[in-house]
Amino acid sequence: MNVTVHGRNRHYRTVTFDSSRNAVMLIEQRLLPHRFEIVATRDYCETTAAIRDMVVRGAPAIAATAAYGLAQGARAFRGHGFNQFTRHIERVFQTLKAARPTAVDPVNAMNRVRSAMRAGQTVEEQQALALAAAEEFADEDVRHCTDIGQQGQKLIRNGSRVLTHCNAGWLACVDIGTATAPMYAAQAAGRKFHVFCDETRPRFQGATLTAWELAQQGISHQVIADNAAGHLMQRGEIDLVIVGSDRTLGRTGEVANKIGTYTKAVLAARHGIPFYVAIPLSTIDWNLRSGMAIPIEERHESEVLGAWGAISNPKPEARKSKSGGRTYVRVVNPTSGARNPAFDVTPAELITGIITERGVFKPGELADQFRS
Amino acid sequence: MNVTVHGRNRHYRTVTFDSSRNAVMLIEQRLLPHRFEIVATRDYCETTAAIRDMVVRGAPAIAATAAYGLAQGARAFRGHGFNQFTRHIERVFQTLKAARPTAVDPVNAMNRVRSAMRAGQTVEEQQALALAAAEEFADEDVRHCTDIGQQGQKLIRNGSRVLTHCNAGWLACVDIGTATAPMYAAQAAGRKFHVFCDETRPRFQGATLTAWELAQQGISHQVIADNAAGHLMQRGEIDLVIVGSDRTLGRTGEVANKIGTYTKAVLAARHGIPFYVAIPLSTIDWNLRSGMAIPIEERHESEVLGAWGAISNPKPEARKSKSGGRTYVRVVNPTSGARNPAFDVTPAELITGIITERGVFKPGELADQFRS
Repeated sequence: MNVTVHGRNRHYRTVTFDSSRNAVMLIEQRLLPHRFEIVATRDYCETTAAIRDMVVRGAPAIAATAAYGLAQGARAFRGHGFNQFTRHIERVFQTLKAARPTAVDPVNAMNRVRSAMRAGQTVEEQQALALAAAEEFADEDVRHCTDIGQQGQKLIRNGSRVLTHCNAGWLACVDIGTATAPMYAAQAAGRKFHVFCDETRPRFQGATLTAWELAQQGISHQVIADNAAGHLMQRGEIDLVIVGSDRTLGRTGEVANKIGTYTKAVLAARHGIPFYVAIPLSTIDWNLRSGMAIPIEERHESEVLGAWGAISNPKPEARKSKSGGRTYVRVVNPTSGARNPAFDVTPAELITGIITERGVFKPGELADQFRS
Repeated sequence: MNVTVHGRNRHYRTVTFDSSRNAVMLIEQRLLPHRFEIVATRDYCETTAAIRDMVVRGAPAIAATAAYGLAQGARAFRGHGFNQFTRHIERVFQTLKAARPTAVDPVNAMNRVRSAMRAGQTVEEQQALALAAAEEFADEDVRHCTDIGQQGQKLIRNGSRVLTHCNAGWLACVDIGTATAPMYAAQAAGRKFHVFCDETRPRFQGATLTAWELAQQGISHQVIADNAAGHLMQRGEIDLVIVGSDRTLGRTGEVANKIGTYTKAVLAARHGIPFYVAIPLSTIDWNLRSGMAIPIEERHESEVLGAWGAISNPKPEARKSKSGGRTYVRVVNPTSGARNPAFDVTPAELITGIITERGVFKPGELADQFRS
């Protein structure tokens, strides 16, 4: 999307690759909306850390990052012979895979890169194929998000009040976004509407990332506490909900997404409000037979115990630290602990439709339509 | 309850009155859990500001504060004659009433004080009766909370996992609390259980106040993001919910409480988890015929736009400021705004039982049992 930084409007992708430096280039999302900065990961270990520590987040974005990371790791191989190379690739693959357990996209993306590599006869050929496949994956993600926007934009009418949770925007993808794609397409079609952004505790992705994106695009929006959506639905102030997904089970139509998504789906069902999930088909998990089998990442309790705010210390040493100079305030009583599950699972029965690049489907239709 | 401050364990009430200074004495709740401080309001205007700015909050606590505030205003009367006095009392009453619109308790409490005053033949007699009635109201609140604890404690078994929202603890009352009273009574009865405290954005009353209270009392607990309860219910990790209420409609059984309560009730109903509301009968509104008629306070968007954290500046001038030296961090994108409804309404059908000082009743039974 286009971003205005220091008064200059330019187009950016969330994830790109600098082949001359063999570096994955990422928008440093932990600093948004306070500072816009592109960081380069120098090797696949740094790329893994960037995924784990959420420099980049969002299922499609970490998928592209993992695909590039695998190519990055392949291109950095300094050993000898095919066997060593294959073992090296396996190590890179497993390292990147372990960065975040809930999303299935990074694994799907890396499998595609690995498949493409097999056509190469030499290490050098495989290295080149790896990067080409990663680039193709990223480009395809952009095309899919564009198509999701076209498929979903008709759901947003003039005057619609849309609720979204977390950030399934262009920052969660390579570009355009999944849940936001229909909004951007509806805006392009000339429609006026209003978006409520759940702030999305504990990491505030809605308050920071989605609100920033919508502000950049000039879309009317307000942030609400995660507690407020039920009340707004009860008072008739929300017309539809659109969220993204970190893993969608093709067999059952269940959707794993940011913690709190399930709650919004339950509320929407009670109020007869349509609840949509926007995904590229590539994020579907065709293996698991039950949402209960999806591993739910439990993140560090510090995320719940406090809050990260605006940048208060722009000195170079603070900028280089993990916090990037942002202020962390402890909120919770000092002698109390916290639980911090990062995702939850929404059953198919609560989902009105899944917006994909090929159309809007009921969760139960996925298997019939697309299972190969 | 007993509080350990600077290593010394002492009993405190949330709200008391210092008749020699004609001051309402309040625990400064905006500084908890970071600092324990008692503040004195010098006149009824300061008492009104303390309610409005949430030095004290929680329906029963602001009711006692308003009762004391009316007595404080009455005792400060410096005019002449009964007519002037009556007009003065009306002004004090309306000022205190307007501090927060959603709770009905302050009005009920002040009506009781005003009724008691009528037995006085002189201004001086009425002033004395006002304070006696306010003291009696506060003492009665403590008795009611004690009885709520006894009525509700049997709902908490050994090993129970209890969810609570916001703070309906002793800090929300004069002492003991409403939603927490059954917990404290179950603990006194020797039972072991675990409490999940919703952090309760935007003001974090669960993360700061409830967690602090439970830690002071040595009750096992963890804070969770408001987004997490649905997931924990889905995984069978919550056995019952107990919350308080800011206004309960006697005619319909609807409950107005902190924003997000309705959401938890919807989730609990879906999972067949009992959902209890603990209230003294004095907080019932017998007039309104629909929850839609309850005025829902919309508070300033700054509460959603950021977060208040621990004390970072303990200098005297910072301590005297409204922030009390706490750090406020802006979280939301700088060019975005917020909506901030402070309460929501839960319909009777979602409420398993109302725990009162006279027993546990279904919402529909209130009118038959208690309507005078």
